[in-house]
Amino acid sequence: MSVRVAIDCMGGDHGLPVTIPAALSFLRHASDARLLLVGMSDRIEQALIEAGAPASSPLRNRLEIRHASEVVEMDDSLQVALRGKRDSSMRVAVGLLREGQADVCVSAGNTGALMAVSRFVLKTLEGIDRPAIATQMPNRTGGTTTVLDLGANVDCEPEHYLQFGIMGSALVSALGGADRPTVGLLNIGEELIKGNDTVKQAAELLRASTLNFRGNVEGNDIYEGTVDVVVCDGFVGNVALKTSEGLAKMLGDFIREEYKRHVFTRLMALLSYPVLRRFRKRLDHRRYNGASLVGLRGVVIKSHGSADAYAFEVALQRGYDAARNGLLQRIEETLARMRAGGPSAQLPDPVAAAGQN
Amino acid sequence: MSVRVAIDCMGGDHGLPVTIPAALSFLRHASDARLLLVGMSDRIEQALIEAGAPASSPLRNRLEIRHASEVVEMDDSLQVALRGKRDSSMRVAVGLLREGQADVCVSAGNTGALMAVSRFVLKTLEGIDRPAIATQMPNRTGGTTTVLDLGANVDCEPEHYLQFGIMGSALVSALGGADRPTVGLLNIGEELIKGNDTVKQAAELLRASTLNFRGNVEGNDIYEGTVDVVVCDGFVGNVALKTSEGLAKMLGDFIREEYKRHVFTRLMALLSYPVLRRFRKRLDHRRYNGASLVGLRGVVIKSHGSADAYAFEVALQRGYDAARNGLLQRIEETLARMRAGGPSAQLPDPVAAAGQN
Repeated sequence: MSVRVAIDCMGGDHGLPVTIPAALSFLRHASDARLLLVGMSDRIEQALIEAGAPASSPLRNRLEIRHASEVVEMDDSLQVALRGKRDSSMRVAVGLLREGQADVCVSAGNTGALMAVSRFVLKTLEGIDRPAIATQMPNRTGGTTTVLDLGANVDCEPEHYLQFGIMGSALVSALGGADRPTVGLLNIGEELIKGNDTVKQAAELLRASTLNFRGNVEGNDIYEGTVDVVVCDGFVGNVALKTSEGLAKMLGDFIREEYKRHVFTRLMALLSYPVLRRFRKRLDHRRYNGASLVGLRGVVIKSHGSADAYAFEVALQRGYDAARNGLLQRIEETLARMRAGGPSAQLPDPVAAAGQN
Repeated sequence: MSVRVAIDCMGGDHGLPVTIPAALSFLRHASDARLLLVGMSDRIEQALIEAGAPASSPLRNRLEIRHASEVVEMDDSLQVALRGKRDSSMRVAVGLLREGQADVCVSAGNTGALMAVSRFVLKTLEGIDRPAIATQMPNRTGGTTTVLDLGANVDCEPEHYLQFGIMGSALVSALGGADRPTVGLLNIGEELIKGNDTVKQAAELLRASTLNFRGNVEGNDIYEGTVDVVVCDGFVGNVALKTSEGLAKMLGDFIREEYKRHVFTRLMALLSYPVLRRFRKRLDHRRYNGASLVGLRGVVIKSHGSADAYAFEVALQRGYDAARNGLLQRIEETLARMRAGGPSAQLPDPVAAAGQN
């Protein structure tokens, strides 16, 4: 079965000069993929020619261009994205999922706009109140830790953490990880007052679920790789992600500065090049590009806005994997299993759970 | 004027073998400091002798031993720390502040216990509802960013963020930073739903205050050094801190692994030693040891529990600086200025502010 990938070719900081070369490279590697390139058709055609895929190229048999006359800019408001630009490449690409013409949609556009458009066009899965944003962060084990939510939901009720756990587990399995991924609830230290009431109630729901829940984890556990999935509210997750980005950037700059200090250290940098390159590769954020918008009736992948062609291809690959390995079905199966399970495995009644506050 | 430093000599993972050598080294460098060493007097006496300060040592003229028969262990509950061990070294040391016998108290004991004991013994400053935990994190400018709260307050009302801003600003000034430090409110990305209601209201209060408020910042700004003080609730601050610790540890391990890979890379590590040492020094978390418990009627510094003598001495120095530069007076002056200021500079009425929710 071929996987059909809809690409918002106009989104992101760079648009076509990044998305088209990435799409072609991806297509060469994924022999059973088919692409739907969404955006201004004449410009896409031109970009394809420039990237070495004229109309005569055999690659063209596995790709189609779908015209969209508008582009959601990185600084457009949600209002503009949702109501102003109904023929945007983002919206048309997401629409292809809804129409069953594509199995996954990838965009490097504005996160808030992509979430709003996806939610509006696709709706959420039954049993999921709110979609979330999930990403993979590298950890010490050499694997990755999946963290969600990263900013779509800033005020969460206990049952949302449970839903994040369900979606995160399904995502890990779909992306080739464990079959029953371990799940941890992001909380704060033992010695301090342990978390707030919402988080405490979330822990109870997770513990009573059929998920492989391992209890509370702390910020450092994201990088220890203590669990496969870390659930938290979108405010906390976003701060953890951005703080990490800031620290990694500062450390990279520090290393560069130290090696540039004088002739001897410059020589050392040259000699250490293989080591530094491996180190850089290991941490290359481009390798982890592609956040998943989970909980929707369709697989939507958000690439970093500033992604280059390599990073964007990673996001395409991630979307392809998620669709190919049945991310949606896995989420739905877990939800169904919980509904069918014994009393301790049942999904909470959202109204009753909210009432516990 | 001499600064009198009360030291909980029994606290932390190591106790006397760390606290006594650190205390003596600190005393040698700070010629106007006087120390009150609190703990089991015979064991302190023995440790002083072992560390090269017998009764005949001139250093002994500037130190006194204060006996305390109990020790708050790292895993003692708050109940035990507060009610069970009334003669603990932690409690006696904090008590010396209250009795006006000391200007600052430093402990490496359990954070939760130290905060609970300090709050119980000292009470909060007028105008401060809740004390907070603040620490300095290194940033790209070569300076530090002061972040609070780090875990004492998991559910905050808008006015608490304002109080954190006041306390953080006073702390930065007292520790030798700017006279009117810039303050940022930790929030999440532009493109997402900007923060929750509490944070939005906090921004309004901060904007209306006499603080040098610069608006919202994101997690990466902690390391960019965008502002001097970053305020957030204790849950978010704790996650940001722990996540950073985890990432820094993972990166350190990665570098070590890469350099250990084979003979050539080991040689590179040897040659790069000066660079790697400078890098390590720049990031040495021991240099940033000493979190401040602010908002209390006394200056209390919390050292990392696992601190070695070098790190503990850094915490002593930080406490000495804070006391010497009038941390408490600075907080009180700012509060007084706000109360006296025009309508736009007034401290909000806590009851009315809480009612806005």
